[in-house]
Amino acid sequence: MSITITGAAGFLGQRLANVLARRGERVVMCDLVEPAAVPANGTFIQGDLEATLDAAITADTKAVVHLAAVVSSGAELDFDLGYGVNVAGLTKLLERCRSAPARPPTVLFTSSLAVFGATPFATDESPTTPASSYGTQKAIGELLVNDYSRKGFIDGRTLRLPTISVRPGAPNKAASGFASGILREPLSGVRAMCPLDPSSVLWLASPDSAVRALVHGLYVDGDAFGDYRCVNAPGISVSIDDMLASLERHGGDRSLVDFVPDPHVAAIVGSWPSHFDVSKATAMGFPAADDIDAAVASHVERELLGVVG
Amino acid sequence: MSITITGAAGFLGQRLANVLARRGERVVMCDLVEPAAVPANGTFIQGDLEATLDAAITADTKAVVHLAAVVSSGAELDFDLGYGVNVAGLTKLLERCRSAPARPPTVLFTSSLAVFGATPFATDESPTTPASSYGTQKAIGELLVNDYSRKGFIDGRTLRLPTISVRPGAPNKAASGFASGILREPLSGVRAMCPLDPSSVLWLASPDSAVRALVHGLYVDGDAFGDYRCVNAPGISVSIDDMLASLERHGGDRSLVDFVPDPHVAAIVGSWPSHFDVSKATAMGFPAADDIDAAVASHVERELLGVVG
Repeated sequence: MSITITGAAGFLGQRLANVLARRGERVVMCDLVEPAAVPANGTFIQGDLEATLDAAITADTKAVVHLAAVVSSGAELDFDLGYGVNVAGLTKLLERCRSAPARPPTVLFTSSLAVFGATPFATDESPTTPASSYGTQKAIGELLVNDYSRKGFIDGRTLRLPTISVRPGAPNKAASGFASGILREPLSGVRAMCPLDPSSVLWLASPDSAVRALVHGLYVDGDAFGDYRCVNAPGISVSIDDMLASLERHGGDRSLVDFVPDPHVAAIVGSWPSHFDVSKATAMGFPAADDIDAAVASHVERELLGVVG
Repeated sequence: MSITITGAAGFLGQRLANVLARRGERVVMCDLVEPAAVPANGTFIQGDLEATLDAAITADTKAVVHLAAVVSSGAELDFDLGYGVNVAGLTKLLERCRSAPARPPTVLFTSSLAVFGATPFATDESPTTPASSYGTQKAIGELLVNDYSRKGFIDGRTLRLPTISVRPGAPNKAASGFASGILREPLSGVRAMCPLDPSSVLWLASPDSAVRALVHGLYVDGDAFGDYRCVNAPGISVSIDDMLASLERHGGDRSLVDFVPDPHVAAIVGSWPSHFDVSKATAMGFPAADDIDAAVASHVERELLGVVG
């Protein structure tokens, strides 16, 4: 049987596909654009998620990892697109899983710290009172995944991921994109803008940490979630100043970072918690997240030195 | 300008329409079935909510009170109907408000204690981890109403209502229907079944209390909600035993109540909190809820003695 990954051409999807293939899984990668690589025993389905759902999720599908989404700034700028992809698209995916003629597949849904409102500290029990459309859409997704699981239509699980840093590649429309840019660009000798002040604290996970969390979330026994199929994934609380200190320890020049306040970004990112209690994740066996030096070192090795881990 | 009430033929809708008309408002009552009475300056639009939305919400609409819903047991028994009405129907209503060619209307949405998971005590900050499809659908509605408000498409507000008792009329598909039946039926000399044991504590509001909360929620300044457009409405925590003691004080015979455990009802109602912190509602000026004797006395006066309050 196979594991379907939506949004598989993204950096997390690509890495997850590689990791799962190395574990002997047959992956079905779905995206609008072609991924950099498809594992030898994997397949790629190109196209709009809704149009390709019947081919992407079949009786052969034992699990779905749903990474496809309109990101935070994108969802804030285009209300209809955000709801269309992040809510209506997810709903159609869940309905396809419900009607798939096999046993209920495992569905791993990626939510975000953006589901929380303006609070500096969040636990798994914090209210989901989001201050952005993206956070609202993710919070709705958590509710749907839990209810479809409760009804036995899927074996669902939601991971609330921290902001990912250092995200490789070109900037995207995530409001938190700067959290990668202020490390990634100076490491390549390029200037970067930081919309928040240096004392601001962010809740981060490295790509390595996020992939480890996804793999654990996929294979962990669903009952370990308890009554509600959602968990805050491990991360680290780190100030922008500490991120830039790590940049310097890895040979980057922090003077390449220009501090330019951006009220649009501050309104979105500033509403996200910076400190988390992840005791539920820890009790469920999720591995701890990399510290900032490990995150920067891994980026340097993989993206700049070409070491494939 | 006028105020549209969906689900207006229900007992809360009918009473709210009367109260608003007495305040000089012009009400537009919408429902599948005809209401008992339409105020002199009001109108009635009969039909499916989606089919009648364009007529129900117009440039003349200054506010919408959305009471139409599939209730708890109904939504649990028919998954598609529950999502179709409680989520898709609400979404279409919000979209109609967004496109209505007047200033953004006030939208009062009624949510429920069912949004909370299995916890004995709830505050406005408790997580919405519902253990039923109805609770899930209401929690999604809260998120949508807040996000549409944040974007300026509506002036939205959500009231999380307690279980209503004593609800007049015939039993409906609410899992909590027994909370009215064990008072209403014996007061008329009819036997009633109670699926929970006498020590069980419920979170209740009388119809009078619920209507007062709806009126206050409709007219209160939206900014009073703070960052998130949702509030737990006032109620009372009362045991079934105390309800039956009140029944006897009002001339009812508690021996007409048969205790017959029902795992389906226990699974839904047993997951709802019985005790609440309503300090946000109190600070916002919502009136305190009637005690159980006032609730029973009002039912006797209005429904059995024909006194119109």
